[in-house]
Amino acid sequence: MRPINRILLAGAAGALGRQLRPFLAGHCAHLRVTDIADMDPPGADEEVIQADLADPVPVLAMTRDVDAVVYVAGKGMEAPFDEILRGHMLGLYNVFEGARKNGVRRVIWASSIHAVGFYPFSQVLDSRTPPRPDTNYGTAKAYGEGLAQYYWDKYGIESVSMRICSCFPEPADRRMLSTWLSYADLKRLVAAALTCTRPDHTIIYGVSANTHAPYDNRYAAHIGFRPEDNAEAWRAKVEAEKPPFAPGAPEIATHGGAFATFGHFDDPQQD
Amino acid sequence: MRPINRILLAGAAGALGRQLRPFLAGHCAHLRVTDIADMDPPGADEEVIQADLADPVPVLAMTRDVDAVVYVAGKGMEAPFDEILRGHMLGLYNVFEGARKNGVRRVIWASSIHAVGFYPFSQVLDSRTPPRPDTNYGTAKAYGEGLAQYYWDKYGIESVSMRICSCFPEPADRRMLSTWLSYADLKRLVAAALTCTRPDHTIIYGVSANTHAPYDNRYAAHIGFRPEDNAEAWRAKVEAEKPPFAPGAPEIATHGGAFATFGHFDDPQQD
Amino acid sequence: MRPINRILLAGAAGALGRQLRPFLAGHCAHLRVTDIADMDPPGADEEVIQADLADPVPVLAMTRDVDAVVYVAGKGMEAPFDEILRGHMLGLYNVFEGARKNGVRRVIWASSIHAVGFYPFSQVLDSRTPPRPDTNYGTAKAYGEGLAQYYWDKYGIESVSMRICSCFPEPADRRMLSTWLSYADLKRLVAAALTCTRPDHTIIYGVSANTHAPYDNRYAAHIGFRPEDNAEAWRAKVEAEKPPFAPGAPEIATHGGAFATFGHFDDPQQD
Amino acid sequence: MRPINRILLAGAAGALGRQLRPFLAGHCAHLRVTDIADMDPPGADEEVIQADLADPVPVLAMTRDVDAVVYVAGKGMEAPFDEILRGHMLGLYNVFEGARKNGVRRVIWASSIHAVGFYPFSQVLDSRTPPRPDTNYGTAKAYGEGLAQYYWDKYGIESVSMRICSCFPEPADRRMLSTWLSYADLKRLVAAALTCTRPDHTIIYGVSANTHAPYDNRYAAHIGFRPEDNAEAWRAKVEAEKPPFAPGAPEIATHGGAFATFGHFDDPQQD
Amino acid sequence: MRPINRILLAGAAGALGRQLRPFLAGHCAHLRVTDIADMDPPGADEEVIQADLADPVPVLAMTRDVDAVVYVAGKGMEAPFDEILRGHMLGLYNVFEGARKNGVRRVIWASSIHAVGFYPFSQVLDSRTPPRPDTNYGTAKAYGEGLAQYYWDKYGIESVSMRICSCFPEPADRRMLSTWLSYADLKRLVAAALTCTRPDHTIIYGVSANTHAPYDNRYAAHIGFRPEDNAEAWRAKVEAEKPPFAPGAPEIATHGGAFATFGHFDDPQQD
Amino acid sequence: MRPINRILLAGAAGALGRQLRPFLAGHCAHLRVTDIADMDPPGADEEVIQADLADPVPVLAMTRDVDAVVYVAGKGMEAPFDEILRGHMLGLYNVFEGARKNGVRRVIWASSIHAVGFYPFSQVLDSRTPPRPDTNYGTAKAYGEGLAQYYWDKYGIESVSMRICSCFPEPADRRMLSTWLSYADLKRLVAAALTCTRPDHTIIYGVSANTHAPYDNRYAAHIGFRPEDNAEAWRAKVEAEKPPFAPGAPEIATHGGAFATFGHFDDPQQD
Repeated sequence: MRPINRILLAGAAGALGRQLRPFLAGHCAHLRVTDIADMDPPGADEEVIQADLADPVPVLAMTRDVDAVVYVAGKGMEAPFDEILRGHMLGLYNVFEGARKNGVRRVIWASSIHAVGFYPFSQVLDSRTPPRPDTNYGTAKAYGEGLAQYYWDKYGIESVSMRICSCFPEPADRRMLSTWLSYADLKRLVAAALTCTRPDHTIIYGVSANTHAPYDNRYAAHIGFRPEDNAEAWRAKVEAEKPPFAPGAPEIATHGGAFATFGHFDDPQQD
Repeated sequence: MRPINRILLAGAAGALGRQLRPFLAGHCAHLRVTDIADMDPPGADEEVIQADLADPVPVLAMTRDVDAVVYVAGKGMEAPFDEILRGHMLGLYNVFEGARKNGVRRVIWASSIHAVGFYPFSQVLDSRTPPRPDTNYGTAKAYGEGLAQYYWDKYGIESVSMRICSCFPEPADRRMLSTWLSYADLKRLVAAALTCTRPDHTIIYGVSANTHAPYDNRYAAHIGFRPEDNAEAWRAKVEAEKPPFAPGAPEIATHGGAFATFGHFDDPQQD
Repeated sequence: MRPINRILLAGAAGALGRQLRPFLAGHCAHLRVTDIADMDPPGADEEVIQADLADPVPVLAMTRDVDAVVYVAGKGMEAPFDEILRGHMLGLYNVFEGARKNGVRRVIWASSIHAVGFYPFSQVLDSRTPPRPDTNYGTAKAYGEGLAQYYWDKYGIESVSMRICSCFPEPADRRMLSTWLSYADLKRLVAAALTCTRPDHTIIYGVSANTHAPYDNRYAAHIGFRPEDNAEAWRAKVEAEKPPFAPGAPEIATHGGAFATFGHFDDPQQD
Repeated sequence: MRPINRILLAGAAGALGRQLRPFLAGHCAHLRVTDIADMDPPGADEEVIQADLADPVPVLAMTRDVDAVVYVAGKGMEAPFDEILRGHMLGLYNVFEGARKNGVRRVIWASSIHAVGFYPFSQVLDSRTPPRPDTNYGTAKAYGEGLAQYYWDKYGIESVSMRICSCFPEPADRRMLSTWLSYADLKRLVAAALTCTRPDHTIIYGVSANTHAPYDNRYAAHIGFRPEDNAEAWRAKVEAEKPPFAPGAPEIATHGGAFATFGHFDDPQQD
Repeated sequence: MRPINRILLAGAAGALGRQLRPFLAGHCAHLRVTDIADMDPPGADEEVIQADLADPVPVLAMTRDVDAVVYVAGKGMEAPFDEILRGHMLGLYNVFEGARKNGVRRVIWASSIHAVGFYPFSQVLDSRTPPRPDTNYGTAKAYGEGLAQYYWDKYGIESVSMRICSCFPEPADRRMLSTWLSYADLKRLVAAALTCTRPDHTIIYGVSANTHAPYDNRYAAHIGFRPEDNAEAWRAKVEAEKPPFAPGAPEIATHGGAFATFGHFDDPQQD
Repeated sequence: MRPINRILLAGAAGALGRQLRPFLAGHCAHLRVTDIADMDPPGADEEVIQADLADPVPVLAMTRDVDAVVYVAGKGMEAPFDEILRGHMLGLYNVFEGARKNGVRRVIWASSIHAVGFYPFSQVLDSRTPPRPDTNYGTAKAYGEGLAQYYWDKYGIESVSMRICSCFPEPADRRMLSTWLSYADLKRLVAAALTCTRPDHTIIYGVSANTHAPYDNRYAAHIGFRPEDNAEAWRAKVEAEKPPFAPGAPEIATHGGAFATFGHFDDPQQD
C-alpha cells in the first residue's frame, strides 16, 4: 500500500471502523478519525474528532488537508427514516461537500448489498446492476451511489462504492456462507480502493472469495481487490449450529434477505 | 381515459401542475390539489389544500381515500441542498409513505432528465439507463427513482417515474429541438401512466415525438405513451431567433445541458 | 404476396385455420388443407385431407410437393399432458420430418405467448427472450421453437415461430387491449412470414399495433410484418363491459395471464 | 455436503449413474435407485426399483418421501425419435410430475451440451445461451430445460439443469481437451447442485477446469461448483494417440461436434 | 436545413455525388466540389476542383475555409487492393487530415453495408454492430470508421459514417426490396447528418423506410434521419422482372450479398 | 505445444521477435524468420529472409509451405502515416494474401491496446469491445483486426489478434502495474494461439495476470491462455522509482495512456 499522507476515517467507533482504524494507521502518516460516539483516545499520529456528520460545519473542518476519506459511518441496519436521513444521507453528502471544498482526491465508502436487496438471490449481481433497495437504509445507499457518481462526473472526486455484503467475524448463519466478508478481506478491499490507479466512480461488491458468492466483480477488475478468505471454512460449524432455511424462506429469497421482508420501522403495526 | 374516483395532484401551482389541473379534473370524479404556494380556488368536485409536502402530517391526511397521485411538486431547477432536500426528497418520501398507509394504488411523478444528465448527448438513453445525475436536483430525482422501485417491490405501490425533458410551451432554444415535451404530450403521458394496465415501477422519458429526440422508450412500451407533437414545427422560428451552439458548447455536450456545468449553489465563488 | 405453388394448411378447422383458409387460397395455385376434425368441402384448387397429425404416415404423404406449410393445428389452450403431446408436439415433429423428407422449403407455425408466459407483464419481450412456459401447452410450444431452430440449423428448412398473443375477433377483456391480434393482422403476419426473403428461423410476436402492446419485434424486422389494427378502437366498449382487474390480479401479473395460474389439468383437486 | 434424508437416483445403471450411486449413498440416509436395466442389488440403506420411467405409475410411487431427485436416465446419444421421446422426454416429465404430487423440493438432472450444439465452437457459452439443439436428443434436452423452468415458476420445485459436456474416464480425443468432465468433477457438480442455498432453476455447464474450456459458468456462481480437474494432464497422451482434426472438421466446427453433422436416425439413406 | 457557409463535396462525379451536388448547392452559400473525374462546370457559388484525393497536397488546399465535408468518393464496388487503397483509404485519410489542419468541424462520409457484409442477412444490424467486412472494399470502409472515431476522440472533428445499403434509382432486384436507399432518402440522410446538433462520431444505416429493412437505427436517433420511401412500392415490378433467389443463394445469405462470395480481384483463377 | 512443421516469424529483429525466435525454434521442425532489419544468422532448422513486408513479392514467397505465421513486425509506437501504412498495414495485408494463396492455416499477430486506446482506463475491456484507436498506429491495428476477420469469414484462415498491452522486461512505470505483459506470458499467449483447437478469428488481450489488469479475456476462453506473472511482484520497486501520476494525468486517463494525447506526428506544431 503506497504511503498516503492523511486519511479521514468516518465512523471509527462502529464495527467496521474499529477494524479499519488500526489497519489504516499503519498505512498513512496521519490518521484522523471521527464518530458521533465515543472513541478510543488518539494514538501516535492520530487525531480524534467527535462530531455529528449530519452537521456540515465540523465535516468541512475535518476534511481539510485530507488525501482520502474512508467512510463507514452510520449503523448497518434499517431504522426510522429520520435516523437514516441523518445518519446515512446527510453524513455522506457533507463528506462529499467537504471533499469538494477542500480538494480531497478520493472517497471510499460503504454502500451496501441492501441498495440492490430486492434482486432474487439466484441472480448473480455485478457492478452495473442498478439499485433495487429493500429498506429506507437501502434507498439511502442508492442515493449515496448517485452522489458518488455525481461528484466524480462534476468535480473529479474519485470514489469507490463498496456494496458490503455480510461483514462479520465469521459467517453467522447459512445465508452468510454465500455473503460473508471477512474482516481481513474488508481491509484488502479498502486498501485496493485507496491505492488503485484510477477508480473514477466504481461500484464493487464487498464479499470474500466464498465458493457460493453470487457476485461478479469483473467490471471492477481495475480496483485489484483479491479476497482470500472463504466461508466454506466455517460450513461445518454453521451447519451444526443453524438449521437449514425452509424452502422459500425470506432469508434466501432475495439478496437483501430478511431486510427485504421487514415491516416498516415507522409503522409498527404494519403487515 | 378510464374514470378514476379521486386523484391527488401535488404541485398544482407550478408550471406543470397548472397544465395538469384542468386536464385531470376532466378525468376523475374528485380532484384534490395541493401546493405550498397559493392556488386558484376549488372548482366543482375539487378540493384545494395548501401545505408543505416536506411535513408528513398533512401529506398523510391528503392521501386518504385517493386512488392515484400525480406528483409534479418542487421547482424544476438546481437549488441549494436544503431546498432540494425539502422540496424534492422529503416531499416525495412523504407521499409514498402516505400512499402506503392509505392504500393508494399508483403514484405518477416527475423525475427528470437531470437524473441522467451526465451521459453524452450523442448517447441514446432508455428506461434501463442507470442514474448519472448532474446536480443536487438530479441526485434527488435519482433518489426518488430508488424510492419508487422500493415501494413497488416491498409494498406493491405501482409507479411511473417520468424523466421529463424540456417541458415548455414551445422549444426555447436549439437544444430543445431534441428535448422538447409539449404540454399536450405531457397530458398524454400522464393519462397513459394513470390508466395503463400494469406499470409495476417503470421509468419513461417525457419527450415529444421530435425527429431528433435521443430517447428510446421501448422498454416502457406497455405504458402506451404515444406523443404526437414534434419540435421540428418550431425549427424555423428557433433558428431565426437563436444562434447555433458553438462546437463543444456545454448546452449540447451532455443530456443535462447547462445543468451539467453549473457551479455549485452552496458555493457561489466556485469554478 | 408473391405466388406460391402449393401450401399445406394444418389445422384448417380451428379458429385460426378458418380465417387463414380463404386467405391462403387467394395466394397460391393449390391449397391443401388438413385437420383431425371435419372441414368444409374443397373449393377450386383445394385438397382436403382429414387426418391425425400425430400419425407420421399421413403427414409424410401430405407434405409431398408442398412449397410451404402453415401450421396452426392443436387447440390453443391448456390440456392434459397426453393431449398436448399428441396435438402439439407430435404433430409439429411429424410436419418437420415430412418437410425434411419431401424438401419443403419453409414452415410457418403458431407458437404462443404461453412459451414465455411467466415473464412479468411489465417486461417488454422480444425475439431473443428465452422460453419461460406457463403450462403444458407452453412447454410444448417451447419444444416446437427448439425443433424449428434445429431443422433450420441442420436441414436448412426455413421457419417462422409466431408467438401468437390473443387472436380473437375483437378484444374480449381489458388485458387484450394490450395483447390482441386481429384476424386481419394475423393474415398480414402469415403473408409476411411466407414471402420474406430470408427468415432462417425467426421468432416473432403475433400482436396488433396496439398502443399498449408489450412486445418489441425489432429483431424480426426482416420479416416485414406491419400490423395495422389497434385495440384502442375497442377500449370504450371493453371498459363498458368488463370491470378493471383488481391490483395484483393474475390476469395482469404475467404475460401468460390466467394460464400462469391454472391448476394442473392432470390433477383437478390441486391448488 | 449436508445430510439429505432420501435421494432418488434415476438412471442408476448408466455410465453416470454408476459413478453417482456410491457417491450419493455416502451423502444421504436413504438412497433409492432406479433404472429400466438391471442394477446391482441394494446395499445398506438402499432401495432398488427396476422400472420404465416413461410409465407414470411407478414414477409417482418412487418419488414418494423423496427430498431430491438426481436424474441421469436415458442414453447420452442420438437415437430414433420414439426412443428419445420415451427415454428422455416422458421420463423427465413423469419425474417432475411425481415431484409435484409428492412435494419433492429439488430435481438435479442431466441436460446436455447438445441442447446448444449448433453454436460455433469458438463462441464461449454461458447459462443464458438459449437452446440451439443439434439432434433429436438435443431437442429433448431443450424441452427438459423448459420443463424445469416451468416447474420452478409454477410449482416452486427447485432444479439444476446440468449441460453435461464430455463425461468420460479421461479425454478420449483432442476435442475433449476442451470439453471433458471428469467423474470427480461430476460428483462435485452434483453435490453443489444438491446443497446450494437457492438454485431456483439454474442452467450450468458440466465441464472440468480445462484450460481450454469454452464455457463460462458466471451466471451460475451461486451453485458453488468448483471443478478441480484439467484435461491438460492428458494432453500428451491424447496427442500421441489421436491425430489433429483437419481444418474445418465437423468435430470442432460446433459445440455439438459430430452430433451436429449426424445423418438422421429415422432416415438412414439421408444426406 | 440550417444555412452552412461552405461545403466540400468529394466524389462529385459519382452516382451519389451527382445526386448530392444540386441538393447541397441549395443549402449552403458556397459549394466546392471535387473528383478525380470530369465534372460539370461550376454553377453560381460553386467551385470545381479536379484532383486525386489520394494526394494530400490538393486535399489540404481544398479543405481550407470549409465548414463541412460530404465525402462520397471512390467506386462503390470491389476492386484490386491498390485501387481500394488509393480510392478509399488514402482519400479519406487525407480529408480527415485536411479537416484537422484547417479546422473543419464535421465530416459526413459514405461507409458501406460491406463493412458488415458477413453478418447473416437474417440478423438485424444496428449502429453498435462491429465490422465484419466482406471485401477489400469493406475492410477499407471499416478502416474509415476507425479513422472517424479517432478524429472525433482526439481532435474533436464530428462525423457521421453512413453505412449505405443499396442506393439506386429504384430497387434493382428482390434483395433490394430490403436494402434499397432512394435518392430522396439519401438526401434526407445527408441533410440530417449535416444539421443535427451533436453527432460526435455516429454510425447510421443508409436505408429507406422499407417494410423489410433489416437495420435498426435506434442508437442513431439523435441524427434525426426519417426516411420516407419504401421499396414495397416497387415490389410488383421487381417480382415481375426478377425471379426469386434459390434457397441459400449467396445474394440473400449475408448482408453483403454477392460481395461476400466474390472471388478475389487480385487472383482471378482463385476458387 | 504440439509439433508444427514450419512457422514463419515476421518481425524477428524487433523486441518481441527476439523473444519469440528461440521460443518458436523449440516448437516447430522448421522456423523461417524475416525482418527488414538485420537478424542473427540462422540456427539449425532455421531460414533467415531479410525483406520489406510492404513488398508483396517476397511475402508471397516466404509464406510458401508454412503452417502458421506469427506476425510481430513494425515498431510498436506512433509514427508518420506513411511509415505506419508501410510498416503495419501493407505488411499485414501482404501476409494475409500470402497465406491465402499458399494455403497457410493460421495467422497469429500483434494487434495492440492502442486499437482501443480511447476507452477510459476505468472501463474493463473484453474481446467484443469495438475499436476506438488513439493514433495512426491504433487505426492501423483496427484495420488489421478487420482484415483478420475478413480472411477468416471469406477464406477460412484462422487468426488470433493479440491486443498487446505493455510488453516489457518488467513494469516500467505505475501504469504498467496494470498493463504489463511479461515476456514469459507473451510466449504462453503465442503458444496457446498457435495450438488451440479452433480460434476462427479471436481477439484477446495480451496482459499478464496482474492484480489490477483492466481486461477480461472471458470471450477468448477457448484460446486457453493462462498467464502466470503478476506485476505486483514489481510494485515496491516501481513505486520507489517512479512518482505517482497526478490526478487526471493523461497516462491514466485512457487505456492508450500517453498515446491518446500525443500530438500528431505529421504536424509537429499542432495543438
